[in-house]
Amino acid sequence: MTETALTVHQTARPTGFPSADQFRFAESPVPEPDPGTALVANLYWSVDPYHRELMDGGFALHAPLEGRTLGRVVASRTPSLAEGEIVFHRQGWRTHAVVRPEEVRRIPHHPGVPLSAYLSVLGGTGLTAYVALTRIARLRRGEDLFVSGAAGGVGTATGRFARLLGAGRVIGSTGSAEKAAYLTRKAGYDAAFDYRTAPVADLLARAAPTGVDVFVDNVGGDHLGAAIGALRERGRVVRVGTISQYNTPDAPPVRFDHADVVEKSLRVEGFLVKDHLDAQEELYDFAVPHLRSGALVADETVIDGFERIVEAFLLMLRGGNTGKILVRAA
Amino acid sequence: MTETALTVHQTARPTGFPSADQFRFAESPVPEPDPGTALVANLYWSVDPYHRELMDGGFALHAPLEGRTLGRVVASRTPSLAEGEIVFHRQGWRTHAVVRPEEVRRIPHHPGVPLSAYLSVLGGTGLTAYVALTRIARLRRGEDLFVSGAAGGVGTATGRFARLLGAGRVIGSTGSAEKAAYLTRKAGYDAAFDYRTAPVADLLARAAPTGVDVFVDNVGGDHLGAAIGALRERGRVVRVGTISQYNTPDAPPVRFDHADVVEKSLRVEGFLVKDHLDAQEELYDFAVPHLRSGALVADETVIDGFERIVEAFLLMLRGGNTGKILVRAA
Repeated sequence: MTETALTVHQTARPTGFPSADQFRFAESPVPEPDPGTALVANLYWSVDPYHRELMDGGFALHAPLEGRTLGRVVASRTPSLAEGEIVFHRQGWRTHAVVRPEEVRRIPHHPGVPLSAYLSVLGGTGLTAYVALTRIARLRRGEDLFVSGAAGGVGTATGRFARLLGAGRVIGSTGSAEKAAYLTRKAGYDAAFDYRTAPVADLLARAAPTGVDVFVDNVGGDHLGAAIGALRERGRVVRVGTISQYNTPDAPPVRFDHADVVEKSLRVEGFLVKDHLDAQEELYDFAVPHLRSGALVADETVIDGFERIVEAFLLMLRGGNTGKILVRAA
Repeated sequence: MTETALTVHQTARPTGFPSADQFRFAESPVPEPDPGTALVANLYWSVDPYHRELMDGGFALHAPLEGRTLGRVVASRTPSLAEGEIVFHRQGWRTHAVVRPEEVRRIPHHPGVPLSAYLSVLGGTGLTAYVALTRIARLRRGEDLFVSGAAGGVGTATGRFARLLGAGRVIGSTGSAEKAAYLTRKAGYDAAFDYRTAPVADLLARAAPTGVDVFVDNVGGDHLGAAIGALRERGRVVRVGTISQYNTPDAPPVRFDHADVVEKSLRVEGFLVKDHLDAQEELYDFAVPHLRSGALVADETVIDGFERIVEAFLLMLRGGNTGKILVRAA
């Protein structure tokens, strides 16, 4: 714990892809907790695609940013929080946070589970993948799955969870040959392709010549039209995000032939994970035993040092990570 | 019952809008039923949008067409079918049909219900509307509804059923000022517009300034994009058909911003009524008491004379009908 606290502020709105000069690191003394609060020294920060959207207006300029964070209570003036406890909170993008007890969630103690997992496969990222498969797609054993943005945090968790839930073939799309190789060699995918090499419809037809039952779409754009064509009867599309569109405001909307939706009785459904926080305990029950046994691995790209949080965020937006990207206190 | 039977054959495939010269009326003697079959003299024929699709390949050329039909058993050589019984079968587009008992469904006797209703609000058309609202949209009391192709068979049944199911505002889109007036004056719609007069999004914003919860889409095209924009959180789109695209093979696919699907947690779902035939008894239980009390009216355009069946079909494709279009034996 240093004597100086660092906070990141956004200083300008991006047009298109964000850049580092739209952020500023502000120094201040480490704050003192008031009565009823506690001081948390942050240990892990999550940077997420939705932060890009917040940059357009959800983040105030010249004010501390928010984000999912894990930290340790280092000074407490409330009986509800003990020094040494590990808590989850949303005052991200800063080295220290003063929190009220109702602002934090205690991280459960699951022996053998690394702390970072509570921001990756056991955190919002894992919960998104779990809800997408179980509540929205309602994946059944033996069904074949296609995932776009497959090498990211949600994509890797989706592939691994689908395998543990008894999926048939699991096929992923990602943005480089290296990440496609990661998916099939490390992350349990049966097939993967680099969508930049050919039309997505052609690549998907090659990887899944008889079609798929479920498409978990983290990307939007061309992937959706291609997947609609490849879906079997009663197929489902789960729309998780629109990362391909955040940085290209002039990009055309996605297009597909809606006759397919009727003739194949398809369902296309979007969701926000905040409406499914009640699934958190179910996710622990499902995933923790598999993490302990080694059947489940948390795919993570960890960047060391809070001062690299903007770099980590831009790397994530460029697709430079495999698995969930996290920043760890040095 | 005449001594001559008439059958309609398709003689050529359409490119774009079909024409009468792609059909031919064939004369033959009235057939004799073989043992195990019965002769049915047809009374009502349904012509439907899906027939347009069958013209592209589903209907064999120079062979009798198929369709939903009601007729009376006039000669029986099977103990399973009694002379005088009214039956539903699928040997449409002909004055007489020889049927096996397993090919027909007996029409239940609901006193006070007109026979034609079994091809309109109690038939496949009504079942489509009922399933769209109850099983796919899962409409709740007080929710506001937007319907495209609102003046057609499915559209009118959807509006009337929604009202009886406790919907809030019911708003319809149709292709002429006359049909819009029909919807609000006769068919129980709260508001209706002619979609040819302005961009659908503008017309819908005017008719439903605070948005809608459910969109039952019989049309596709621009309506879908407009409705996606107008849907409230957790809104549902039920895709019933694609009539706007059958006759314009070069029409672009529908387009909308899929970020809306995520951010508003929307669901877009297509279905085929053939997968929901088990809802038929539930439809009778729901609709027959309302038909008897007068709370439900079957909207129908009835064309008299089998020789006008092609005319009726083309009229339906041009949107010239209000309610379900039926042909009645002279």
